Amino acid sequence: MHKIVFVTSNNGKFNEARSILGAKKIELLQNTEGYPELQEDDLEPIASFGAKWVAEKLQIPVMVDDSGLFINALNGFPGPYSAFVENKIGNKKILRLMEDEEDRTAYFKSVIGYCEPGNDAVVFTGIVKGLISFEERGSGGFGYDPIFEYNGRTFAEMSSEEKNKYSHRKRALEKFFEWLSSQR
Amino acid sequence: MHKIVFVTSNNGKFNEARSILGAKKIELLQNTEGYPELQEDDLEPIASFGAKWVAEKLQIPVMVDDSGLFINALNGFPGPYSAFVENKIGNKKILRLMEDEEDRTAYFKSVIGYCEPGNDAVVFTGIVKGLISFEERGSGGFGYDPIFEYNGRTFAEMSSEEKNKYSHRKRALEKFFEWLSSQR
Repeated sequence: MHKIVFVTSNNGKFNEARSILGAKKIELLQNTEGYPELQEDDLEPIASFGAKWVAEKLQIPVMVDDSGLFINALNGFPGPYSAFVENKIGNKKILRLMEDEEDRTAYFKSVIGYCEPGNDAVVFTGIVKGLISFEERGSGGFGYDPIFEYNGRTFAEMSSEEKNKYSHRKRALEKFFEWLSSQR
Repeated sequence: MHKIVFVTSNNGKFNEARSILGAKKIELLQNTEGYPELQEDDLEPIASFGAKWVAEKLQIPVMVDDSGLFINALNGFPGPYSAFVENKIGNKKILRLMEDEEDRTAYFKSVIGYCEPGNDAVVFTGIVKGLISFEERGSGGFGYDPIFEYNGRTFAEMSSEEKNKYSHRKRALEKFFEWLSSQR
């Protein structure tokens, strides 16, 4: 069985990825040591740098995941700093920023970075498009899920099984798996 | 004359620092190559990592500056991501976030990171405390200056000479200069 080390301290991310890749006969191991996350306007260079850094440090193949919510009316804010912004100001303040905005479109994006020691990192991007709701709805999920609407319901109004069918992370992981399969 | 390379692509920062350190007989040279900026909740580790990274790369003594606006009612937002947030949502949206907030206190913070090759980086912090105004005022300065009040006027309502007397960067640079002088 193929084994990959997923460097993340976020158990939700790890469990989602383990479930998706487990179905493909890939065993995922969690490593919580962390890595330097760059300040960049988009996620790809952050995931790429992080994966390369850990692969060289640990001398094993590793994957990392960097995700964010990009709101079009706010020029992509909070984007790469989604976790920081959620932590500091939260969903109610995001809705406040959106009060006058007619364009409610937004997307969640997940970038998987994968690197084997001595090689360059490769990245795989998954996106799910939706709308910013007018109020928080639902008690599932985490982070921005209560204000992100997909087909009329927020991610927080879905079971995790249902959310994971559409999720940005699922889409990035499937691309990663296709690439991995093509390499063998 | 002592020479230091200041790694920054921000000419405003460079000119302010050159003027302040020039008065102390230190010649500042600008380098715009950049360095990896980490995602951290505060500025010190960002400046420290950046200074060390460039000093080892160029093999010369270098300084960097990382600055931000920390709003207490918003738990320190936008903090280390001040430039990104300014660029994406701007001052009017910051005022929107502050509409219901009674606590208007905030501070600008500047951290100078300095490193000589082979040594650890050292950091020097300067802070100026003020209030978030209720509307933008003044046409001077840049960034958050029109919404940052110090003694009744915003930084954008002051001449650059006056603003620089109180500025967070001035305070950090003075600590840096004292330290440099004590090393000789």
